[in-house]
Amino acid sequence: MNPILRRIPKSRLSGCVKYVAPQTPVPARCIAATAVRHFSGSPVQRIKFTSEKYPDIKRDSRFAQLTEDHVKYFTDLLGSSAVIDAVTNEAASDDIEPFNGDWMRKYRGHGKLLLKPGSTEEVSKILKYCNDNMLAVVPQGGNTGLVGGSVPVFDEIIINMSRMNQIRSFDEVSGTLVVDAGAILESVDNYLAERGYIFPLDLGAKGSCHVGGNVATNAGGLRLLRYGSLHGSVLGIEAVLPNGTVVDDLFKLRKNNTGYDLKQLFIGAEGTIGIITAISIHCPQRPKAVNVAFFGLESFEAVQQAFREAKSQLSEILSAFELMDAKSQDLVHAVTQNKRPLEGEYPFYCLIETSGSNTEHDTQKLETFLEDVMEKGIVVDGVVAQDETQIRALWGWREGVPECLGHWGGVYKYDVSIPLEKLYELVDDTKARVEEAGLIGETDEYPAIGVVGYGHMGDANLHLNVAVRRYDEKVEKVLEPFVYEWIAKNQGSISAEHGLGLAKKNYIGYSRSDTMIGLMKQIKDLYDPNGIMNPYKYI
Amino acid sequence: MNPILRRIPKSRLSGCVKYVAPQTPVPARCIAATAVRHFSGSPVQRIKFTSEKYPDIKRDSRFAQLTEDHVKYFTDLLGSSAVIDAVTNEAASDDIEPFNGDWMRKYRGHGKLLLKPGSTEEVSKILKYCNDNMLAVVPQGGNTGLVGGSVPVFDEIIINMSRMNQIRSFDEVSGTLVVDAGAILESVDNYLAERGYIFPLDLGAKGSCHVGGNVATNAGGLRLLRYGSLHGSVLGIEAVLPNGTVVDDLFKLRKNNTGYDLKQLFIGAEGTIGIITAISIHCPQRPKAVNVAFFGLESFEAVQQAFREAKSQLSEILSAFELMDAKSQDLVHAVTQNKRPLEGEYPFYCLIETSGSNTEHDTQKLETFLEDVMEKGIVVDGVVAQDETQIRALWGWREGVPECLGHWGGVYKYDVSIPLEKLYELVDDTKARVEEAGLIGETDEYPAIGVVGYGHMGDANLHLNVAVRRYDEKVEKVLEPFVYEWIAKNQGSISAEHGLGLAKKNYIGYSRSDTMIGLMKQIKDLYDPNGIMNPYKYI
Repeated sequence: MNPILRRIPKSRLSGCVKYVAPQTPVPARCIAATAVRHFSGSPVQRIKFTSEKYPDIKRDSRFAQLTEDHVKYFTDLLGSSAVIDAVTNEAASDDIEPFNGDWMRKYRGHGKLLLKPGSTEEVSKILKYCNDNMLAVVPQGGNTGLVGGSVPVFDEIIINMSRMNQIRSFDEVSGTLVVDAGAILESVDNYLAERGYIFPLDLGAKGSCHVGGNVATNAGGLRLLRYGSLHGSVLGIEAVLPNGTVVDDLFKLRKNNTGYDLKQLFIGAEGTIGIITAISIHCPQRPKAVNVAFFGLESFEAVQQAFREAKSQLSEILSAFELMDAKSQDLVHAVTQNKRPLEGEYPFYCLIETSGSNTEHDTQKLETFLEDVMEKGIVVDGVVAQDETQIRALWGWREGVPECLGHWGGVYKYDVSIPLEKLYELVDDTKARVEEAGLIGETDEYPAIGVVGYGHMGDANLHLNVAVRRYDEKVEKVLEPFVYEWIAKNQGSISAEHGLGLAKKNYIGYSRSDTMIGLMKQIKDLYDPNGIMNPYKYI
Repeated sequence: MNPILRRIPKSRLSGCVKYVAPQTPVPARCIAATAVRHFSGSPVQRIKFTSEKYPDIKRDSRFAQLTEDHVKYFTDLLGSSAVIDAVTNEAASDDIEPFNGDWMRKYRGHGKLLLKPGSTEEVSKILKYCNDNMLAVVPQGGNTGLVGGSVPVFDEIIINMSRMNQIRSFDEVSGTLVVDAGAILESVDNYLAERGYIFPLDLGAKGSCHVGGNVATNAGGLRLLRYGSLHGSVLGIEAVLPNGTVVDDLFKLRKNNTGYDLKQLFIGAEGTIGIITAISIHCPQRPKAVNVAFFGLESFEAVQQAFREAKSQLSEILSAFELMDAKSQDLVHAVTQNKRPLEGEYPFYCLIETSGSNTEHDTQKLETFLEDVMEKGIVVDGVVAQDETQIRALWGWREGVPECLGHWGGVYKYDVSIPLEKLYELVDDTKARVEEAGLIGETDEYPAIGVVGYGHMGDANLHLNVAVRRYDEKVEKVLEPFVYEWIAKNQGSISAEHGLGLAKKNYIGYSRSDTMIGLMKQIKDLYDPNGIMNPYKYI
């Protein structure tokens, strides 16, 4: 009798651990069904203005006020259907509001003009005009960011990229894709799936986020462990500088050592030196076999052991090693009321995904691994998905976390890198602090509901989240700068994959030296001497 | 009966296709034994001075002439054992000569002062002094480059990094290595091998090249297909700017989105904006199983088919897909007199390497693949290495090519990226041109011996080489700008992995627009306003 079958207890999800290959190449992951993000009808109006929340941030008086003439220039250039004008037309205020607020409901700008360019040339003309007329802009992709980077603070012109959403070319031999910045990640990945390829990045917001935004923020996500960072997979960029110059670097091959690799500066620049209008990217073969397993573990020490074993034993087929703590799963359960994958409850859960070219080999590797970690007592209980529906369901317990946490009102989110052995200590230390301050409890008088840790264990990337009933300065004061100081002390990064935006502009010093910050400011000044690109944010 | 066993004819290397796992994790590849590169005793004096070969390049009169005072400053700083001074001591001229010439014997400078700093602080003091005194410098790693980037043109001070060769730290859980720039690639890889890890880059010159030089030139090499480019795997850099500023960015984790990723500018900058003194890099688990197969194919169409099948069937375990044409193998055979791997002769040969965690699975995948491509008639004949010695021997037929080609006198080398379907056309077209010009033949009156194509098929990276009895302007005129024009027309890159150096400084316009070159010059001016860093080269 197979010891895995014997030792993995019957779970509510399925008692069977045998993996059955899905009919379609790889299932699109989905978030927990009851926790779907929705923009329309979202009460943006009730979000506090960023300018009120952070009164220290003042509108830069060098920037011009928008006038009828400005609006006319843009309307003539783009056509009125590509412009939302609440400058000369107050009735359009409601139309522009969804673009002024972020989905976390933390940031809200006073934007009165939104432009939707349809071509690189239009972006170039817009930016040149803005630069010549000292009009500040905020580039906006799918507006799924968590740090307030893609909405205005004051009256910056919103340049929304959603109309530039075409696939320009795809080479089925090399796997090189050239695509407009405004294409939605999920649509692009579906296009690739039909051709046997996969986008080298995946994340929870895939249904809304733009690939240009992903590159502009150097999104990390779920596949970094396997396919590496965008700095390695992006082959070329087309971008427009504030002065209208088009950076024409859409190279399609993997090797190109002809001068400074300038495209790298735009990867993760968060729209502060230019607007990315297209990317070329190396896409890997889509794996034919995907397995997902979900475990319960008794300690963070066991999680680390499981990770080491997975790296060693699953090696080239390991495509995700995700961590969720007990509280995160409790909260997902409370919101979704879905049946839990495991019968028992554990302090830690891990989700492991393998992706490979041979179902039989991968299943055998995974079973050998499972057998080994259960024999050694590293993993206490676990299930393996046996079809696409179960794969989606298991991923829902990980991907549903960020959105379920927002269910009660708000979330303080920290996206950090920490050396692996220290990774979970930050959650314990933060929880102790919030408890000591008497801010956490079951009833309405307490602002905080729970301190939660989850994330991409495989990349030493923790998402520390504090779910709250309401945003409260007392909570914020307990958390900051405590979290950043903790990170600095432990040589981590205060922003692993989410970027700086407005949220972390003032905290970069915890992760970067004055020298580095000085060098970065040189780059900003070089490309954007007037400072019109996404002001008040980043560095 | 196994159709592979039946259909792969008995070869001189071995009739057996069964792979046996080597005792040590992965064998260090070696070049063909009789074609070892040697510096000592190499007649550098007989290399023509670069300044004579390219009389249009004039010494920049803004640079100061070296004086006794300058030498004294450096000797006081570093100690006399770390200085070769042929400025005040003519007897040292012979000592400095090996550092003035490149191993291809194409470039030779007039350098009179060589410095070997032992620390980042010393590098900082050297550069600050040079910048303040308008002394030009050339950073030098293992001096294994092919484009004249690491030797002086005139009297630039050679800053040789060989003394900074220590491993600073290695994390056995995350695989992050921090290492001095002057460490030799092979030594570093051996260190990692003992710990179950692998350096994500490998190349023929591994026994001499420095990891700092690899990063400074963004070396591609043999593992890019599997582990991606250095832009993805390098996690951090320590570098010194001309004004002495230390860029302290030795981050050790995989995700860090805190501002512009400035380290990327130094990857592939070829020492023109600063000197890399250390790197931190993500090292993958060392594969437990390595297989190597060697095929003969009848056409380039078949090579492309084999590559498509290998990508699809071997997928996550494919770690190299190398191409060698008939002429390249004839020349390796002529130099080494080694027994050929296959009995018959074919227009094309491919070397495939797989690297994975499970010998049995990998062997099965490879056998299934072999069976398939032979059944389909894509591959005509092939062998699979059965032990480490055979793996080395097969790799020798690929890695030995560049050095065997130099056996008769010299080689015109072009390292280019070309869309895959066009890749070999360049070799045919170039050969036709050299033949038409009557420059190629069997006897001494003809300068050219053969036009050869080989390279990293998996990265669309061709090495076009013209082996010659002597360097001859007539050959050069037939080749240039023809090759570069051909590349530009076919949207490739004139430098895939070797860099620009002196060789391609004037040709960057074939791969980059004026806009891009202008933006690059901005970066150069920003970091090196006095232009002291590796002048006369790059852009």
